[in-house]
Amino acid sequence: MIYVDNAATTKMSDAAVNTMTKVIRETWGNPSSLYTTGQRAKEVLEEARAEVAAAIGAEAREIVFTSGGSEADNQAIRSAAELGKKKGKMHIISTAIEHHAVLHTLKRLEAEGFSVTLLPVHENGIVEASEVEAAITDETCLVTIMFANNEIGSIQPIREIGALCRAKGVLFHTDAVQAVGHVPVDVVLDNIDFLSASAHKFHGPKGVGFLYARKGIKLTNLIEGGAQERGRRAGTENVPGIAAMATALTEAVSHIAENTTRLTVVRDRLIAGLSEIPHAALNGDAKRRLPSNVNFCFEGIEGESLLLLLDDRGIAASSGSACTSGSLDPSHVLLAIGRVHDVAHGSLRLSIGEDITDGDVEYIIINVKEVVEYLRGFSPIWRDLVSGKKAFIL
Amino acid sequence: MIYVDNAATTKMSDAAVNTMTKVIRETWGNPSSLYTTGQRAKEVLEEARAEVAAAIGAEAREIVFTSGGSEADNQAIRSAAELGKKKGKMHIISTAIEHHAVLHTLKRLEAEGFSVTLLPVHENGIVEASEVEAAITDETCLVTIMFANNEIGSIQPIREIGALCRAKGVLFHTDAVQAVGHVPVDVVLDNIDFLSASAHKFHGPKGVGFLYARKGIKLTNLIEGGAQERGRRAGTENVPGIAAMATALTEAVSHIAENTTRLTVVRDRLIAGLSEIPHAALNGDAKRRLPSNVNFCFEGIEGESLLLLLDDRGIAASSGSACTSGSLDPSHVLLAIGRVHDVAHGSLRLSIGEDITDGDVEYIIINVKEVVEYLRGFSPIWRDLVSGKKAFIL
Repeated sequence: MIYVDNAATTKMSDAAVNTMTKVIRETWGNPSSLYTTGQRAKEVLEEARAEVAAAIGAEAREIVFTSGGSEADNQAIRSAAELGKKKGKMHIISTAIEHHAVLHTLKRLEAEGFSVTLLPVHENGIVEASEVEAAITDETCLVTIMFANNEIGSIQPIREIGALCRAKGVLFHTDAVQAVGHVPVDVVLDNIDFLSASAHKFHGPKGVGFLYARKGIKLTNLIEGGAQERGRRAGTENVPGIAAMATALTEAVSHIAENTTRLTVVRDRLIAGLSEIPHAALNGDAKRRLPSNVNFCFEGIEGESLLLLLDDRGIAASSGSACTSGSLDPSHVLLAIGRVHDVAHGSLRLSIGEDITDGDVEYIIINVKEVVEYLRGFSPIWRDLVSGKKAFIL
Repeated sequence: MIYVDNAATTKMSDAAVNTMTKVIRETWGNPSSLYTTGQRAKEVLEEARAEVAAAIGAEAREIVFTSGGSEADNQAIRSAAELGKKKGKMHIISTAIEHHAVLHTLKRLEAEGFSVTLLPVHENGIVEASEVEAAITDETCLVTIMFANNEIGSIQPIREIGALCRAKGVLFHTDAVQAVGHVPVDVVLDNIDFLSASAHKFHGPKGVGFLYARKGIKLTNLIEGGAQERGRRAGTENVPGIAAMATALTEAVSHIAENTTRLTVVRDRLIAGLSEIPHAALNGDAKRRLPSNVNFCFEGIEGESLLLLLDDRGIAASSGSACTSGSLDPSHVLLAIGRVHDVAHGSLRLSIGEDITDGDVEYIIINVKEVVEYLRGFSPIWRDLVSGKKAFIL
């Protein structure tokens, strides 16, 4: 199988699996316990915290371990909202292409009396810093904008947005689930107050993630209970998972430069190859995108059929976010960059991993071409397009 | 090392570790993905759900996987509160000896306008069903009472409390983190509406748990985002951890009868042995307690010193809840059963596992006796007690 859905999840690295099983076997105590077994687990936990912090330019105490990116997003946004509310500032700025962990949390806050501005993005999937700046009012308590989009891979001007938020005294959160371990992230240089990340997106385990919260910013607990994580997140720490995340992150960060060079070549070859398909278009910016992300719309087909036929041919890809794949609605991200309903339905996301070979790339291009052509042969929409009954959009 | 702190955490069983590593290696896809790798992960997830459900007499759709017991407690209580609020019922009943995941969530709800009754417990750590009944008013939306206490092991009359809540139309949640896998739990027979459990308490992995919510009861999301868990808990599912939890739970439940028989004998031998120490007292009920739980107060000593010296002698035990071991305050549970501050400080919890040997038991008794005597030799409180300056309580 050629797995090109690394934005949905990645395979754990051997090093991460080894760390996990080692900790499970040797350091399985409760880190809150006073005896040696517990204290050893505590040491493993704190080493992992230092390792994770170092990978994003943070201090260890600024890292709170969570069950994943969604929990981190929820906690960051709720914390900033709580702080804003105390000051009477109840306006939050975000974008139309955020992950649902952000969008649905904002919906809940709207129901609680907050006002939310969802900035539109340009056709390339980018929101410019000046546009964020223009939206900030005296009431704004939080700007939350994702680092890199999970569907179309567009990378936002995080550093500029962070700088202007800092200058205006507005908290800045970034959902960096797709960025951490894949592109350079430095919370100090990037002027970030809150950052969310998820281990299974960088070859770590599922069910583990972290929230960076800049020192001095008070977090609101999402999960109340014991005094773990300095009282900021209750529940016995998942020490084996956390240690494995640290291993995976260190490994991923150390390979960013070489992976970027290689994956960018692969990505651009895929984009060039798939662009040869008639009435197809790349989604997102050609350059300001993750080195691993390719996302196309093919007019006249259904993305779901495309995926199933590619699966038959040994290619595991997706139409967009795995988190919404049960839904029949077209991607909110593709709609936000201006794709109409029918076109948005015919999407394909390839998120490539480091193990992809040149042979895989050519195999993918040939097979996507064949399957798109095959599906168009059955498609009533395609028939209408070819007969001129409907106008081509792409 | 003799590990007698299984209430804090347990070592993962070999079977659970094997399931986990197998799923990590073979079925690491995202269960929301449409292709084969994803669908296989989905199958593993749903098999685990059916297995977990069967272990507590529930239906698969009534199980929501969480990151642990604390998250499940938080979500159950918040969901019931939300439902109550809609009906104008904003009174919640609980007990003084709940886990902090429950107590702190209730504190938050109080700040949001709910009224909370924390029922006292008897000296034996039990609250009787009739006492719960007497506290229910027309405003009561939820009764939340733990199945078995994490410190003193007392088992509440859950079935009777559940029955009366059902009869009165009040939702009933039980934090069963210490009970599931250790004593028989059947959500139908026990009349339970919500139940929380945590895998690492029954030889499963850390960072995984589940919430049982009776069908037809609407849950409020604690973590907003993707449509995982039928929209009730966002975030990519920790499939390896969940599958390992199912393996561990099935294993634990299949051994409850034999473990109960054996552990009860061991427990009662420990209780008899430690009762020989002068001015010592068992905490909790002698019979209505977990087969694995022994908890004593020794007058005139500090629990923390006792633990550290026992650790030196190869015994890993605790003074109470691991979740609060950083705190200098005496256990709220011991205070609630009437232990005064000084006495509560001198507590020792032994939570035994299935691997304990008769030799271990005698070793523990001898060493606790020696260490208590040794510590009393240095204790100013003990000097005051012996000299008659202070009166003995125990």
